[in-house]
Amino acid sequence: MLKVGIIGFGYWGPNLVRNFHAVEDAQVVMICDRDERALQRAHKMFPGVPTCSDSLDLLHSPGIDIVAIATPVSAHYHLAKEALMNGKHVFVEKPFTANSKQAEELIALAESRNLLIMVDHTFLFTGAVCKIKELLDDDVIGDVMYYDSSRVNLGLFQSDVNVVWDLAPHDFSIINHLMPDAPVALSAQGIDFFSDGSESVAYVTAHFSGKRIAHFNFNWFSPVKIRRTLIGGSRKMLVWNDLVPDEKVRVYDKGVILDVNDGALGSIVQYRTGDIYVPKLDGHEALLKECEYFVACIKSGQKPMNDGVAGLKIVKMLEACDASMKRNGLPVELDLASLAL
Amino acid sequence: MLKVGIIGFGYWGPNLVRNFHAVEDAQVVMICDRDERALQRAHKMFPGVPTCSDSLDLLHSPGIDIVAIATPVSAHYHLAKEALMNGKHVFVEKPFTANSKQAEELIALAESRNLLIMVDHTFLFTGAVCKIKELLDDDVIGDVMYYDSSRVNLGLFQSDVNVVWDLAPHDFSIINHLMPDAPVALSAQGIDFFSDGSESVAYVTAHFSGKRIAHFNFNWFSPVKIRRTLIGGSRKMLVWNDLVPDEKVRVYDKGVILDVNDGALGSIVQYRTGDIYVPKLDGHEALLKECEYFVACIKSGQKPMNDGVAGLKIVKMLEACDASMKRNGLPVELDLASLAL
Amino acid sequence: MLKVGIIGFGYWGPNLVRNFHAVEDAQVVMICDRDERALQRAHKMFPGVPTCSDSLDLLHSPGIDIVAIATPVSAHYHLAKEALMNGKHVFVEKPFTANSKQAEELIALAESRNLLIMVDHTFLFTGAVCKIKELLDDDVIGDVMYYDSSRVNLGLFQSDVNVVWDLAPHDFSIINHLMPDAPVALSAQGIDFFSDGSESVAYVTAHFSGKRIAHFNFNWFSPVKIRRTLIGGSRKMLVWNDLVPDEKVRVYDKGVILDVNDGALGSIVQYRTGDIYVPKLDGHEALLKECEYFVACIKSGQKPMNDGVAGLKIVKMLEACDASMKRNGLPVELDLASLAL
Amino acid sequence: MLKVGIIGFGYWGPNLVRNFHAVEDAQVVMICDRDERALQRAHKMFPGVPTCSDSLDLLHSPGIDIVAIATPVSAHYHLAKEALMNGKHVFVEKPFTANSKQAEELIALAESRNLLIMVDHTFLFTGAVCKIKELLDDDVIGDVMYYDSSRVNLGLFQSDVNVVWDLAPHDFSIINHLMPDAPVALSAQGIDFFSDGSESVAYVTAHFSGKRIAHFNFNWFSPVKIRRTLIGGSRKMLVWNDLVPDEKVRVYDKGVILDVNDGALGSIVQYRTGDIYVPKLDGHEALLKECEYFVACIKSGQKPMNDGVAGLKIVKMLEACDASMKRNGLPVELDLASLAL
Repeated sequence: MLKVGIIGFGYWGPNLVRNFHAVEDAQVVMICDRDERALQRAHKMFPGVPTCSDSLDLLHSPGIDIVAIATPVSAHYHLAKEALMNGKHVFVEKPFTANSKQAEELIALAESRNLLIMVDHTFLFTGAVCKIKELLDDDVIGDVMYYDSSRVNLGLFQSDVNVVWDLAPHDFSIINHLMPDAPVALSAQGIDFFSDGSESVAYVTAHFSGKRIAHFNFNWFSPVKIRRTLIGGSRKMLVWNDLVPDEKVRVYDKGVILDVNDGALGSIVQYRTGDIYVPKLDGHEALLKECEYFVACIKSGQKPMNDGVAGLKIVKMLEACDASMKRNGLPVELDLASLAL
Repeated sequence: MLKVGIIGFGYWGPNLVRNFHAVEDAQVVMICDRDERALQRAHKMFPGVPTCSDSLDLLHSPGIDIVAIATPVSAHYHLAKEALMNGKHVFVEKPFTANSKQAEELIALAESRNLLIMVDHTFLFTGAVCKIKELLDDDVIGDVMYYDSSRVNLGLFQSDVNVVWDLAPHDFSIINHLMPDAPVALSAQGIDFFSDGSESVAYVTAHFSGKRIAHFNFNWFSPVKIRRTLIGGSRKMLVWNDLVPDEKVRVYDKGVILDVNDGALGSIVQYRTGDIYVPKLDGHEALLKECEYFVACIKSGQKPMNDGVAGLKIVKMLEACDASMKRNGLPVELDLASLAL
Repeated sequence: MLKVGIIGFGYWGPNLVRNFHAVEDAQVVMICDRDERALQRAHKMFPGVPTCSDSLDLLHSPGIDIVAIATPVSAHYHLAKEALMNGKHVFVEKPFTANSKQAEELIALAESRNLLIMVDHTFLFTGAVCKIKELLDDDVIGDVMYYDSSRVNLGLFQSDVNVVWDLAPHDFSIINHLMPDAPVALSAQGIDFFSDGSESVAYVTAHFSGKRIAHFNFNWFSPVKIRRTLIGGSRKMLVWNDLVPDEKVRVYDKGVILDVNDGALGSIVQYRTGDIYVPKLDGHEALLKECEYFVACIKSGQKPMNDGVAGLKIVKMLEACDASMKRNGLPVELDLASLAL
Repeated sequence: MLKVGIIGFGYWGPNLVRNFHAVEDAQVVMICDRDERALQRAHKMFPGVPTCSDSLDLLHSPGIDIVAIATPVSAHYHLAKEALMNGKHVFVEKPFTANSKQAEELIALAESRNLLIMVDHTFLFTGAVCKIKELLDDDVIGDVMYYDSSRVNLGLFQSDVNVVWDLAPHDFSIINHLMPDAPVALSAQGIDFFSDGSESVAYVTAHFSGKRIAHFNFNWFSPVKIRRTLIGGSRKMLVWNDLVPDEKVRVYDKGVILDVNDGALGSIVQYRTGDIYVPKLDGHEALLKECEYFVACIKSGQKPMNDGVAGLKIVKMLEACDASMKRNGLPVELDLASLAL
C-alpha cells in the first residue's frame, strides 16, 4: 500500500485526494496547506485524513511514498526537490516548473535517486484523447495535416502565469502525445489587455516538419467556453468537442482528392463527403486512471509517458511562446527531439 | 424603372436576378453567361428574361442602367471598366478586383463619369451585422478589445484565389464597418497543402492602434462548417453564430473589473458574469436590402457605404495578407486611413 | 412536355412553380390566384408565366395536363373535382381533403377517368425519410417499438384548421410510409386555448398491433421550433432532428438485452451502448424529386405511393383525432388496412 | 451540531454523505448498507465515518438526530417509521413511499412525535427551478397555459418501479411547486415493452382547472438524454433545458395577441416575437442547499415546503398514473387540495 501526501488543497487538491484514495494500492495519509480554511475544508471533506500546515512535516514524514504537489507553479521546484531529496516519488501539477532549468535539475535528481516524476497531464488519460490516439495509430485518420484548437472561456485570470502557461500545457501535452514528431518552431501573438504583465489572449502556431501545423486559440476573456479541436487528416477528419457530455469525438469521412495529372491548371482539388462516425469513449475518470497508472509505474519501475522529460518539453514550448510574443510573433525554433533520449 | 443586366449566371448570379427583380423600381432585362448550360438554366428559372453569351451585347446595350458582375474575380476589372465606359453603374461581386491598382483605376473612372460602384459585401446588410453595429453605436458593448472570427468549412477549393481572397472579404468588410478606425498592420500564416499555389488554411491577425486586435481562422479543409465571431468589449461581450436559424447574436453581460489600487501586485483583475440578451434581428433577405439600397443611392446620387473605396481597402488588406504569408507571418503595415477621403 | 397549371400563389405556390419548372419534361404554363397582389408577385418572380384570377380559366384550359392545387384545404375538393372532370391529373397539397367522403369521391372519379392524384406529402421525398426507410428495410433498426415525434413552433395559427390538421399530415404520412402496418387506434388530447374553435396544442398517440405506439407532440404555441423524432428499434435506435443542416439522422448502437432466464424477478433488462453512425443524406430538394416522380408516374401510368388512397388514410386519421379530442382522449379505432386495396 | 445517519450507500447515498458533511451545523456520524462492498466503498471515500450493516444499529443509536434514507422505495416506509418511533427526523429519497396509505401513516406519526419529514425533491433547490418560480411570482411569465416536459434517456431500468415512479416525482414536485393550484385529473398511457410488469415508456397529461395542462414524456428507452421543459405563459414563454451547462433557462418575449372584436371569424389570433433573455442562475449545489434547509427547519421548527404532505401528493399522483395506464389512458380525478391543510 503506497502512502500519498498531498500539498495544496485549493481547486485541484481535493480531486487528487479523492482519486488517490480510490486507487486499490494507495492511500492518502496527509494533506498539507498553508491556509487554515483550506485545512478546515479538508477536515469536512475527508474527516479521516490528518492535515498539516507546514509542508516540511509532510516532505520529511517517513511514512510517505508519494508526494503530490497541487500548488501554484512557482512552488513546484522547491517542493519537488525537497521531496526527491527525501526519497519520495513526485506527482506534480502542470506546468511542471516555472522554467526549463528547474525541470532539468529535477529530472537529473530523480534519475540519480531512482525515483519517478509524473507531471499531471490529465488529458492524456481521457477517453477522448485515448480514442484519438487509437484512431491515429490505426491509421484511420491518416497523417495529421493540421491541428486546430480553441480553448477559450472567461477567466480565471491568474497573477502568476499568463493565458499560455495556464491553458497551453493541455494542448501541448496532447499534440506531443498524438503527433509522430515534435514541433520545430513556435510563433505566438498575445495581448496583455490589462497591462498587468500577463497576456490574457494569445494565438499560437506550432510548425512541424513539412507543411503540418497546429494552431491554438487561447483566451481568458471569452464570454463563452469553447473546447474544440479540429484535426485534418490525409484520410479522414476529426472534431473533438470536449464540452458535450456524449459524442465528444466525431470522425468525418471527408477529405480531398488530388488529381495531379492535370499539369495545365496544376493539381486539381476535389473533395468528398461521407458518413460520420461517433465512437463510444471510455467513461472512467481520467484522473483516477492517471493515479492508478502512476502507482503501477512505481511498482513496476516503468517510466511514465508523462514523466519529467515530457513535462520539460512543454516548459520549453511555453518559454518559446513567451519569446515569440515578445518579438511580435516571430517564429522561435525548438529542438525537442534531443530530449526524447 | 432602372434596367439591370447580370453578367455571370453561376452560383450567385441567380440570386442577383431574383433580388434585383424584387426591387420596386428595378427590372432585370438581360442575363449573360458564356456557358450555354448556364443560359439554359436561366431560361428555365426566369423564362421571361432574354439572355446573351457575349458580354459586349449586354455592356453596350443602351437599355441597361446597371451592370451586375458575378464572374470570377479575374474578369471584374475588364467588365467593370467597359460598363463604366458605357455609362453604366456597376454592382460587382467581392473581392472588388484582383489587385489594388485595378480598383484605383475603376474608382477614378467612375468619379469622372459620375457613376456609382457598389461592391457586393452582402454581410453588411444582414440583420446580425446591422444589430451588432447598432449595439456598438449605442455603446452597449463599449470599446472592442478583440474580434475573433472562425470561418471554416470544407471547400470549395477555387483555382483562381486562395482561402484568404475567398473568405476574408466577408470579415474584412465587417470589421471595417464596425471598428471606428482601420487596422494598421496585418500578419498572416497560410498553408498550401496541395502545392497548387493556393493556401487552403490561413490564420490572419489584424492589428489596430492600441492593443486591439482581430483574429481570423480561415479554413477550406474543415470537416465542419463554423461561422462564429467573438467580440470582447470593454462593457459587454458578444457572440455571433451565423449558422443558427435564430439567436445568431448573443450579448453577454460579462466583463472584467480592474482594481488598479493594488500597486503591489499590479492591477488585480476580477470578472463578473450576468444575464444574456438575445436581440431579435431583422429577418429580411440581406441581398434584397442591398439591391434596394443601390437603386436608392443611384436615384439620390448618394455614395454607398460599400462603394469602390470600401472595396479597395479590402483588396489592399488581401494583398497585405499575401505579402505576410510569403514572409512567414511577418506583420505588414497598412495605411488605409488616407483612402477614406 | 407536360403542361402544369398552379392554383394558389400564397406561401407554397411559388415553390411548386419553381420546382415543376425545373422538371425536365414539365413546364408551368399558368398561375391562378384570386388575390391581385399574389398575381403581381407572380409576375415579378416569373415574368414569363401567364396568370389568371378565375380558377375556371385554368381548369378548363385545354393546354393544361396537370393541375397543382395549393389553396386552403376547404377548396381542395371542388378544384380537384373540376380538374378531374376536365381530364387533368391532380397534384394537391396536404391534407388531401376536408373530410374522407370528399377524398373517396375524388379517388373514384380519378379511377373512372384513368387519371392520377398525388397528395403533396413532401417529407416522403426528403433525404432523411428516404434514409430511415432504407435503414428499416435493411433491418438495421429492427422492429420499430415506438416512434416519438415533437413538431412544435410558434404559429402560424390558421383559421380553417386546427394544429392537428396542420401538422399531423407530415407525421402521419411518414409513419404510414415507414411502418409495416397501419395504426389500429388513435387517441388525442387537444387544447383550444383561444376559444376560437381550433386546438393549438395537441398530443396524439397512435396504437399499432402489439405494444407498438407512435406519439406526437403538436404545438402552435411553442417559443422554440422543434422537429425531432425518436425511433426505438429492437436492434438500434434512431434520432432524426430535421432542423440541423447536416447530421439530421443519427443511428445509435444502443438497445436492451433481455435475460428471460431469471424467472424469479421476471425478465431482467440490461442495456448496451455503442458507437453512433451519422449517414450521409441525399441533399437534393425533396419537392423537385416529388414533382419529377409525379411526371414519371403519369408517363408510365404507375400509381404514386402518395396517391389519393394514401391521402385518404391520413384524412381518416385526422378525423379520428378530432373524434378522440371531443371525447377527452378516448381511443378511436381505425380500419385503414381495407383501404390498401 | 446535528448528527446524521445515512441508510443506503448506493448511487445517491454518497452525495448525501458529502453534502450533509458540508453543512455547517451537521455531521455524518454513521453510514449503513447491507452490502459489504458498499461499506468498503464508504471506507475508501469517507475514512473517518463509522459504518454498520444492520439498519437497526443506526435507527436505535441515541447519538443520531437525522436519519437519511437512500434505499429502494420499498424500504422507505419501514425505515422511516422505525426512525420516527425512535425520535429521529427523517430525510427520505423520492418517491416518499410505495403507496399513499404508508405516507399518511408516516405523516401522522411525525405530527404526533413533533418530528420533521423532508422528502428529497432536489430539483426544487436548483438554480433553474428557483429562477422559474421567481419569474412566475413576479408575473413575468403570466399565467401558465401549458407545461410540456420531456425526461427521456436510456435506462436505468429498475426492477421495483416503472418509468413513472422513477422519473415523474421530479416533474410532479416541480409543477406542484410552480403552479398556483393542484391538478384535478391525470391521464397516462404506458408501454411495458419487456413484459416485466413495469412500463418503460409513458406519456402523462395533468389537467388543471380551466384549459391549463401539463404533459410529460417519460422514456427509459431513448437513445438520447433529453431534459427539456416548455412553459407557455400568457405574457411570455420559457424553455428550460437542464442539460446545458449555462443558459438552462431562456425567457422568450413571444406570445399571442387575441383580437376578439372580429365576431365573424371568432377571435383572431396573431403572434408576436421579440428578444430572448437568459437569466443568470444560482450555481450552488442544490442538494447542499436542501440539506442546509432541512437543518434550518429542524432548528426553527418550521415545516419544510417539501415535507411529508408534499411527498404524499406526489405519491397520489403516481397512483393515479398507474390507475389511468391500466384503463388505457382514461383520466383519473384527483383531490389534492384537501391535503394542503
